[in-house]
Amino acid sequence: MAAHMPAEEFRRHGHEVVDWIADFLERVDTLPVVPEVKPGDILAMLPDRAPEQPEDFSVLMADLDRVVVPGLMGWQHPGFFAYFPGNISPPAVLAEMVTASLGQQGMMWSTSPAATEVEMKVLDWLVDLLGLPQDWKMAGPGGGVIQVSASDATHTALAVARHRAQEEAALDALVAYTSGQAHSSIEKGARVSGFRHLRLVEVDDQFAMRPDALERAINDDRAAGLTPAFVCSSIGTTGTTAVDPVRRIGELARKEGLWHHVDAAFAGSAMICPEFRHHQDGLELVDSYVFNPHKWLLTNFDCSVFYVADRQPLLKALSILPPYLRDSASKGADAVDYRDWHVPLGRRFRGLKLWWVLRSYGAEGLRDFIRSHISLAQSLAARVSDHPRLDLVAPVPFSLVCFRHSDGNEATRSLAEAINRSGHSYVTPSSIDDMLFIRVSIGQSKTDQEHVDRLWELVQANA
Amino acid sequence: MAAHMPAEEFRRHGHEVVDWIADFLERVDTLPVVPEVKPGDILAMLPDRAPEQPEDFSVLMADLDRVVVPGLMGWQHPGFFAYFPGNISPPAVLAEMVTASLGQQGMMWSTSPAATEVEMKVLDWLVDLLGLPQDWKMAGPGGGVIQVSASDATHTALAVARHRAQEEAALDALVAYTSGQAHSSIEKGARVSGFRHLRLVEVDDQFAMRPDALERAINDDRAAGLTPAFVCSSIGTTGTTAVDPVRRIGELARKEGLWHHVDAAFAGSAMICPEFRHHQDGLELVDSYVFNPHKWLLTNFDCSVFYVADRQPLLKALSILPPYLRDSASKGADAVDYRDWHVPLGRRFRGLKLWWVLRSYGAEGLRDFIRSHISLAQSLAARVSDHPRLDLVAPVPFSLVCFRHSDGNEATRSLAEAINRSGHSYVTPSSIDDMLFIRVSIGQSKTDQEHVDRLWELVQANA
Repeated sequence: MAAHMPAEEFRRHGHEVVDWIADFLERVDTLPVVPEVKPGDILAMLPDRAPEQPEDFSVLMADLDRVVVPGLMGWQHPGFFAYFPGNISPPAVLAEMVTASLGQQGMMWSTSPAATEVEMKVLDWLVDLLGLPQDWKMAGPGGGVIQVSASDATHTALAVARHRAQEEAALDALVAYTSGQAHSSIEKGARVSGFRHLRLVEVDDQFAMRPDALERAINDDRAAGLTPAFVCSSIGTTGTTAVDPVRRIGELARKEGLWHHVDAAFAGSAMICPEFRHHQDGLELVDSYVFNPHKWLLTNFDCSVFYVADRQPLLKALSILPPYLRDSASKGADAVDYRDWHVPLGRRFRGLKLWWVLRSYGAEGLRDFIRSHISLAQSLAARVSDHPRLDLVAPVPFSLVCFRHSDGNEATRSLAEAINRSGHSYVTPSSIDDMLFIRVSIGQSKTDQEHVDRLWELVQANA
Repeated sequence: MAAHMPAEEFRRHGHEVVDWIADFLERVDTLPVVPEVKPGDILAMLPDRAPEQPEDFSVLMADLDRVVVPGLMGWQHPGFFAYFPGNISPPAVLAEMVTASLGQQGMMWSTSPAATEVEMKVLDWLVDLLGLPQDWKMAGPGGGVIQVSASDATHTALAVARHRAQEEAALDALVAYTSGQAHSSIEKGARVSGFRHLRLVEVDDQFAMRPDALERAINDDRAAGLTPAFVCSSIGTTGTTAVDPVRRIGELARKEGLWHHVDAAFAGSAMICPEFRHHQDGLELVDSYVFNPHKWLLTNFDCSVFYVADRQPLLKALSILPPYLRDSASKGADAVDYRDWHVPLGRRFRGLKLWWVLRSYGAEGLRDFIRSHISLAQSLAARVSDHPRLDLVAPVPFSLVCFRHSDGNEATRSLAEAINRSGHSYVTPSSIDDMLFIRVSIGQSKTDQEHVDRLWELVQANA
C-alpha cells in the first residue's frame, strides 16, 4: 500500500496553506492585475516528465510562488473590470476546503443525502431571496440544481427543448432563437445539442431583443417548413447588460409552443435587491432559468444555478437507470437524484459553499454588496456622460458601464490599451457591429470607490 | 460595501477548518459507511428562509457536525466497496484549497496562463505515465483537457462525432454503438447530443463487445438507410470491468468511418503499471479517450481527463469567438484556449491538484497504490472461487470482484443486504440480464488487507 500523508502532517501543511492563502488575499492588489508572461513561459519552467519518487511538500509550496503566481490573471484584484467578475469570498473558500475533504459524490440522494438536501434547501432559499416564481421550489412542479456554468445550464435547456420537440418533428428541422446580443453559450449550446438552425434576432436601440422581429422570424421559419423549438431571453447581456422583454417573449413562446429559457448569468444576483426586480418581470412565463452566484454573489466557481418550472421534461430527457444505480430510496417522493438534472453523473457538494455564503453575509450583507457596485457604476456612468470626449454606448441597468471615445475606434482602442498597461486596472474592449467600446464591469468583491477613481484618472489622462 | 471576513479572521477560521478536516480524516473509518438518515431528515434540520443578518462562523462549523456529517456517504471510508472509488487524498485536498483561493477562470490562455499551462504539462506527463499514444501530447495533433466527469467527456465525443457526421448526413439518420455492458453515460450522452439511434451491441461470455456483432449492426443500419457515426469501446465496464477488443473495434471504426471513443473511466488509472497495458492495445486507432484520476488516482473530483488524437474536429465543433472573447495571445500557436475543448466556458484551475498528486506520491508511489488494490482483489477472487456456495460471475482484470451466491438471486440479495447492514462494509448489488450479483470494488485509498478480511468474514458468515 502506498504511503499517504499522515493526518498530523496534513494538519501542519494545511496550516501552511491557509497562511499562504491569507497572505495571498492580502497582497493580491499589489500584484499586476494582468500577468506579465508570454505563451510557453510557464511550460518552460516545468520538467517534461513526472517524478518517479515523491517530492517534498515544501517544494510544491515554493513552486506556487515561482511558477503559479506569475501566471495568474487578477480575477481577485480590485482593479479587475474585465469580462464579468468571478468572485471568491472567505466563507466560500473555507467551504471548498470542507467539500474537498468530504469527497462526496452526490449523483443520487442515496450516494450523499447531505450534499443533496443542503443543495435543495439552499436553492429554495434563493427563490425567495431573488423573488423568483414559487413553482420553482423543490416542493413545486419545478426545482433547482447547481451546475458547473451557465454554458452547461443553457446547453441543458437546449437539449431538453430539442428532446421534447423531436417527438413530433425532424431533428434537422428544429430552430432555436436568441438575440444578436446573447452570450456565445447559446450559439455553442445550440450547436452542441444538435440544432442545425439558430436565428440571432434583431435588437432595438438599447440592444434588447425585438419581440416583433422574433415573431417574424418564427413565422418565416414555419413558412419554410421548419419547426421553431427554443428561445433564449437574456436578463443582462454580456456585451452591455441589455434586458430582453421577458414577458412579451414569454407570451410569444407560450403561443408558439417554444421552450423559453432565460440567461441571467450575471444580473440574476442583483435580484436579491427588490428595486431591480422589474427587470425580471414575466418569469412566470419561463421554462428554465440560469444565474451564476459564482459571478457576483461571492460564491466560488463552480456554482451556476439552474431552475426549471416543470421538472418532468428535464427528467424525461436526462434520466437513465442502469442496474448498478438502482436504489430503493430513489423511488421515494422525497428523494431527488440530481444526476438526472444535468449531463454529468458525479457531482461535488457545491451546496455547502452557497449555504455558508448566504449565512456568513446574510441577505442584508449581500444586498449592500450588490448596491455598492451598482452605485459605483451609476456614478462612473454620470462622469462618462459629462465628459466631452467620451460617449456612453448603452444604458447602465446594473454595474456594467460601456463607453467609447468620441473620436472613434482607434481612439477607443488606444484608451483601452492605456488602461490595461497600467498594471492596476484591467478592462475588456468589445464591439457591436463595427463599433468598438470599453466595458467597465464593476463587481470584483473588493472593488471600492478608490479603485474606480484610480481607473477614472487613467481614463481622463488618456482620453 | 459589504463587510468581508478580514484576513486575520480567515487565517484563524482556516486553521479551525484544517483541524476539523484532519480530525475527520482520522475518524472517518469510525463513522457508519452508509448514513443512517431517511429522505427529508436533513431538510427538516434546516430553516425555510435564509438569514437576514450574518451568522457567526462558529455556528456554521457546529452545523457541519450536526447537519452534514450524519448525512455523509462513506466514500472516504476504507470499507467502501460500492460503485467505483471516488478518492480524495491529502495533497489533492491541499491543492483544492489553493485553487479555491486563486479564483482563476481558465477559459482562455489569457484569462489564466498558469491554469492553462500547468494543465497542459501535467496531461502530457500522463501520456508517458500511462503509455498512451505520443500523438495525444499537446505538441502533437491531439491533446488533453480536464473535464468534470467521464459523462461530460463522452458526451463531448458524441457531440463532436455527430457534428462531423451531420455535414454529410441527416441528423435523424445518425447511429451510435456501444456494448450492452457500457456505462449509462454513453446512452445519456447519445440522447443529449441528439442521436436518435443507439445500438447496444452483443457481448461475449466475458461481457466484452463482439466485433462481429458490431459489424453486423453497422451493416444492418446501412442497409436500412441509416448512417453509422460513433462507437464507444470500454476498457473496464462498470458492471464487471470487462475489456472490449479496442484494436479490432478500432480497425472496424476506421474502415467504416466511425468516430471511436474509449471509456476507461475507472481502469485507465491502472495503466500507470506497464503490466496492465495489454488491456489498452490498439489505442493508436482511437479518436478520443477518457479516464478519471478522480476515481482511482487519488485526485479529488472533478478531474476527468479527455484526450483526442486530432484536435481539429473538436475545435471545429466547439469553438465560437464572440467580440468580448477575442484576444491577441489566443491567436498564437502556443496559446491553448481550453474553452474550445468542452461545453463550459468558465473553468477551475484543476491541473493544480493533479500536479500535486503526481509529485507528492511520485509515479512509483502511485504504482504501489494501484498494485496493492489489484492484489487484494485477486486474492479475494481466489477465496470466492474456492468457496463452495459462491461463484465468480466475471474475470477480474483489475480490482473489481463480481460474484453471486450459488443459490441464486434471492440468496445473493440477502447476502448483499447482510453486508450493507454491517455498518462497516458497503457493496453495490448489480445485475446482468436477470442475474443478480455483488460488486466488490476495491479501490478506496485507505482500503487494506484488514478491511477486505473484515468483508470476507461477513461474506462467509452469511453465505
